[in-house]
Amino acid sequence: MGAAKGSKRDTPTLMSLARELGVSHQTVSNVLNNPELVKPETRERVLKVIRESGYRPSAVGRALRTSRSMSIALRLRPSGDGVSREVMDRFVHHLAEGAQAKGYRIQLITAPDDVDEVRLLQELFRDGSIDGTILTDTHFDDLRPQVLASEGLPTVSFGRPWGASQPTVPWVDIDGAAGTYQATRYLLEAGHDTVGFISWPTSSGVGEDRRSGWMRGVADLTDDPAKWMVTCQDSVREGAAAAAELRSRGFTALVCAGDSLALGAASVFRVDHEGGPLPIVGFDDSPVARSLGLSSISQPVEDAAAQAISILLKLLRGDHDGPLEQLLLPPSLRIRDLELFAL
Amino acid sequence: MGAAKGSKRDTPTLMSLARELGVSHQTVSNVLNNPELVKPETRERVLKVIRESGYRPSAVGRALRTSRSMSIALRLRPSGDGVSREVMDRFVHHLAEGAQAKGYRIQLITAPDDVDEVRLLQELFRDGSIDGTILTDTHFDDLRPQVLASEGLPTVSFGRPWGASQPTVPWVDIDGAAGTYQATRYLLEAGHDTVGFISWPTSSGVGEDRRSGWMRGVADLTDDPAKWMVTCQDSVREGAAAAAELRSRGFTALVCAGDSLALGAASVFRVDHEGGPLPIVGFDDSPVARSLGLSSISQPVEDAAAQAISILLKLLRGDHDGPLEQLLLPPSLRIRDLELFAL
Repeated sequence: MGAAKGSKRDTPTLMSLARELGVSHQTVSNVLNNPELVKPETRERVLKVIRESGYRPSAVGRALRTSRSMSIALRLRPSGDGVSREVMDRFVHHLAEGAQAKGYRIQLITAPDDVDEVRLLQELFRDGSIDGTILTDTHFDDLRPQVLASEGLPTVSFGRPWGASQPTVPWVDIDGAAGTYQATRYLLEAGHDTVGFISWPTSSGVGEDRRSGWMRGVADLTDDPAKWMVTCQDSVREGAAAAAELRSRGFTALVCAGDSLALGAASVFRVDHEGGPLPIVGFDDSPVARSLGLSSISQPVEDAAAQAISILLKLLRGDHDGPLEQLLLPPSLRIRDLELFAL
Repeated sequence: MGAAKGSKRDTPTLMSLARELGVSHQTVSNVLNNPELVKPETRERVLKVIRESGYRPSAVGRALRTSRSMSIALRLRPSGDGVSREVMDRFVHHLAEGAQAKGYRIQLITAPDDVDEVRLLQELFRDGSIDGTILTDTHFDDLRPQVLASEGLPTVSFGRPWGASQPTVPWVDIDGAAGTYQATRYLLEAGHDTVGFISWPTSSGVGEDRRSGWMRGVADLTDDPAKWMVTCQDSVREGAAAAAELRSRGFTALVCAGDSLALGAASVFRVDHEGGPLPIVGFDDSPVARSLGLSSISQPVEDAAAQAISILLKLLRGDHDGPLEQLLLPPSLRIRDLELFAL
């Protein structure tokens, strides 16, 4: 055991573990894949050695698996009412494309909540139906990465581990703050003295991230950014009300946490607008923003999907020495002339 | 062989075919599932008997399969720019939910065209990776159903076999014509003397279907419906131009083939609108229609997905005597007060 412990070079194999334990390699394999076939005492003894080897069970489990399912699980969520849902639709498409190019396929699962998602993923992984998973829609107090990592289930997260001190699985995310910072600076450079922000409630990691970029953009202009901001729920109507409020306070340009809010804001600001880009920037570059000629911040979804697949395949190959990958991709600003209202 | 031939009652089984041929049932199974393992002469002889048995290979193949993949393939297409793409997003979600409830899972595939889609489906089916497929986005001259049916691959189509004299696989579809008919009658009953139509080019089966319902709705008002209609590409800008043209001809109400067109039309008709529902009805009830308060026709996507799964499961059980199922589901009209422009 000494050799494997503490040295990353001596990856434990089926054979080395079995040798060390004085059992057959089939027994080690059964402990990991079909534990019910193994006597409890033997199971405990084998698991103890695997744990003490200092490696995550996943590496061992994968090495022991005789065949791959070539399937990657993805939980598909209800599409909901938001105009920005298309981002996830595109992500799923590019994920399927990227996986397929490498001989893998995306298997869709649905679940009412995180608990059921994790339970289903564990089942599918244990019976060999999936090789790994891509998590989406990460949130504060999200225990899924920890549970799946301790299961040894190869997992990549699309979305940061909001609020966690350190990640337990590799992740890819979009740098929302960089996007709203860029939008804010663009509006200031276009001649506006102030740039307000329409924010989602603070419970959302994504929303806080987007707000923080705007805040950095106006940091040298105000000591009290809270007065430059209105918080509301994500709807066109609330976005319009928030925009009317900020307009009455003298704001001539706004960055919004999402395109639904921006759409509402546009309905308020378009009234005396004289052509060219409206001084409103949304987020997600949704089909409605593209259709109406609203400026927005576009997520590099194709790149995110490609990176997520690439990292997951590294995990599946057991080729993931070193620290967990954490990849923050910059979005891009799309400035457009207002189309619908100019017609 | 005589018993099996011509009689639907005596379904050939692994055993009956093997008996008839004087080979082991493993050999028959190999011919269907691992043909490369069987000597060419034997393979030919077995295939000949299977063909002559008068049954589709699928029934035999399925009966011979020792294990199911419990996977259903679905080709996911690029999301494109349309505001109506969300319909497919919701369909996929409900499909995944419905399949999972029955112990199956949706496996996503991508393909640049129909040829590659069919080739990939055949490969996956032959190597036992999928049990069946759901086709979407049917179109004129769509050969996919025929090819897959002759492969014996259990297939259900979401979308009619446009232009085909008879279907080769069961299908579920939304009755677009019923939707536009209902919208047209609603507008006439609301007091409009005429109802115009903004149409897509005629190459689309879905577009023709939607136009035909409007045409039926105005049939007793005009002998020349072509004069009540403008055809254009599916964009907000073209929808606005078409609406301006119809408005200048005196039309006070419009039905549109899709929500992008309706959004453009709304921008023209909102100008002197005095509250309440705008006399414009789109199609697909997209998030943007819901956000802006545009009236639209809503597809029963959840029901369509449930029916598609249910029919496919019948095929997988071999429980599909009688004619192919053809299911046309009625959409529903959603009348809304214009929200954005009324704010």
